[in-house]
Amino acid sequence: MRVQVAIIGAGPSGLILGQLLHKAGIEAIILEAHTPDYVLGRIRAGVLEQVAVDLLDEAGVGARMHAEGLAHNGIELLIGGTRHRIDLHGLTGGKQVMVYGQTELTRDLMDARKAAGLATVYEAKEVAVADFDTDHPRVSYLKDGLRHEVQCDVIAGCDGFHGVCRASVPKTAITNFERVYPFGWLGLLSDTPPVAEELIYATHERGFALCSMRSRTRSRYYLQCALTEKVEEWSDDRFWDELRRRLDPQAAADLVTGKSLEKSIAPLRSFVAEPMRFGRLFLAGDAAHIVPPTGAKGLNLAASDVRYLARAFIEFFGGSTAGIDHYSARCLRRIWKAERFSWWMTNLLHRFPDTNPFEQRALEAELDYVIASHAGRTTLAENYVGLPFED
Amino acid sequence: MRVQVAIIGAGPSGLILGQLLHKAGIEAIILEAHTPDYVLGRIRAGVLEQVAVDLLDEAGVGARMHAEGLAHNGIELLIGGTRHRIDLHGLTGGKQVMVYGQTELTRDLMDARKAAGLATVYEAKEVAVADFDTDHPRVSYLKDGLRHEVQCDVIAGCDGFHGVCRASVPKTAITNFERVYPFGWLGLLSDTPPVAEELIYATHERGFALCSMRSRTRSRYYLQCALTEKVEEWSDDRFWDELRRRLDPQAAADLVTGKSLEKSIAPLRSFVAEPMRFGRLFLAGDAAHIVPPTGAKGLNLAASDVRYLARAFIEFFGGSTAGIDHYSARCLRRIWKAERFSWWMTNLLHRFPDTNPFEQRALEAELDYVIASHAGRTTLAENYVGLPFED
Repeated sequence: MRVQVAIIGAGPSGLILGQLLHKAGIEAIILEAHTPDYVLGRIRAGVLEQVAVDLLDEAGVGARMHAEGLAHNGIELLIGGTRHRIDLHGLTGGKQVMVYGQTELTRDLMDARKAAGLATVYEAKEVAVADFDTDHPRVSYLKDGLRHEVQCDVIAGCDGFHGVCRASVPKTAITNFERVYPFGWLGLLSDTPPVAEELIYATHERGFALCSMRSRTRSRYYLQCALTEKVEEWSDDRFWDELRRRLDPQAAADLVTGKSLEKSIAPLRSFVAEPMRFGRLFLAGDAAHIVPPTGAKGLNLAASDVRYLARAFIEFFGGSTAGIDHYSARCLRRIWKAERFSWWMTNLLHRFPDTNPFEQRALEAELDYVIASHAGRTTLAENYVGLPFED
Repeated sequence: MRVQVAIIGAGPSGLILGQLLHKAGIEAIILEAHTPDYVLGRIRAGVLEQVAVDLLDEAGVGARMHAEGLAHNGIELLIGGTRHRIDLHGLTGGKQVMVYGQTELTRDLMDARKAAGLATVYEAKEVAVADFDTDHPRVSYLKDGLRHEVQCDVIAGCDGFHGVCRASVPKTAITNFERVYPFGWLGLLSDTPPVAEELIYATHERGFALCSMRSRTRSRYYLQCALTEKVEEWSDDRFWDELRRRLDPQAAADLVTGKSLEKSIAPLRSFVAEPMRFGRLFLAGDAAHIVPPTGAKGLNLAASDVRYLARAFIEFFGGSTAGIDHYSARCLRRIWKAERFSWWMTNLLHRFPDTNPFEQRALEAELDYVIASHAGRTTLAENYVGLPFED
């Protein structure tokens, strides 16, 4: 078969891109290695920047998000037992973030794609991308025991960190930047009301904790843990006890506990691959970069890549290569600022087993400064809600 | 002999303290291990915060500083060949810094002390502090072959990083925090006009450089260098050539070179000793903490310690121990913010031989962010001119 765009991966990046291209009359197919249920089952991000909200509106899938999502005007930092509110709205001239789970957003995108009758191949196995250094790239995959081939003009690699697209680029053509953190996040999802209206980011000598949520009835909590921990060793009771220890007395008293729906340990990683374009192959989202979840930037960066990529493809099929020529540099400038912020916020709020005591005190002084200074709070707020686009 | 206060060290900290105590009618002696010429010969800081300027006025020694010092309203950051001005004055609601060499300031303080006929013992050898865990501390020293003893109520340890005061505290009573940097600063002093009106902080792949000055006719330049470098291997010509390489073309063309008056390599260190009070012994300035020179905080922190200490001693001799009881905690809160800032600015502008490539990019993104964001520039400016006193 032949299409204009082959999109590899049916996560949020691939689905948003597919929707934006469809609106522009560009024909695309999405190939996804897993089942729809598997994709929906991944518990991921929950905080959308205005940039991502706007893009979902542009893609025509924002209705339920606006009806059910929770607009947040602030976050709380819990330091030394005292909560300090960061007034995101007041410090950024009226910006907000939207709490809406990636699972819900993915479901909305799937429904829209199905309603429009657009081609998505789930359980496409052994996907291979080829000839992207020519004007006639090809994608092949195995489905129901048969190998299929797709001829296209461009390939969008939206297949995540472990996907085939980045792995298909010659090693000499790509530079990887990476920082691995000496701890993970133990997450618990439960159908309990959130402990507070806004997210609480807690730094504590026992380790970082985050009180997050997906809705008014579904909570998502995280504990910093050693990478050697096993999730089987964390009963729900042990999790709740440890979380309470890291909260202030009011939050510990307000915490409503319940049975976990999901519990897992995720490592934290900072990663960027440069460049993001290789001939006719374009990487977007986790396929090109990973952030630790502390700054809530992963899904938002994917959305900003896709925003650039959709515009670049529309220009390309309109006859100009300017957009695709600038794609990598434009994305990377924004990505590095978000990588920097996520790294900074992770360093600031977590306890590192190997930290020099001087640096631990310097980080505590930095928190003290950020909280006390209007300019300091503003730097946190403006990065958290998302920096403006520069082009 | 008997005095109320024995001050160890006749650098700026000890001299300012002596002057403030004299104004308050408190009797003090200063003991200094070196000669006046040796003290004046040390080439050190050159940038005073408003806090330090105010304190020198309070001490009655500000006249020549106001006449000959240069008030600066901004600094320049040179990044990737482009200079970006940080408008200190505009970003901080009208604050400035004062360029006035530590040598000049020390001379003014010495002159004032001599004019007032106050006791300073230079070349006081083998200084020993004793009994500071009682109400009757003692200080002894060797001078002209004779051992002398001073009985006092309190001892001020203003004798620098290598001084006897901190070294006399039992090791179990003190906690040291330290960060050593894997490079030094090669400094050159010359009677040449400064390359620009304001200081230029340059980050370059060959290493950091700083264009500073002491007056309109005397310049002070620095180059980041390896700790294995020998100053003998740096001819003046080699220094100027290397400096030009790290500057932008305009600055390289404007640079006026000349014979060096002084050239030396200094290691960079972050250091804090906690607490700063041990019974009747009080540490101030470099005796308790060291910053890398990048943020121009060393002398300014010493001034803020002395401000707290003079007030505390005046209260003490007036019958209240509140000031001396809070001295250490008050100083340390301010010190840690300045340590944090100096560490941050050093990390941001220098090249580290051992930096992970991810972290190098993250630091470049941070610079990019700080320059582009009003809040980012404000955090730099408000720390550079000096944070307000909190009590």
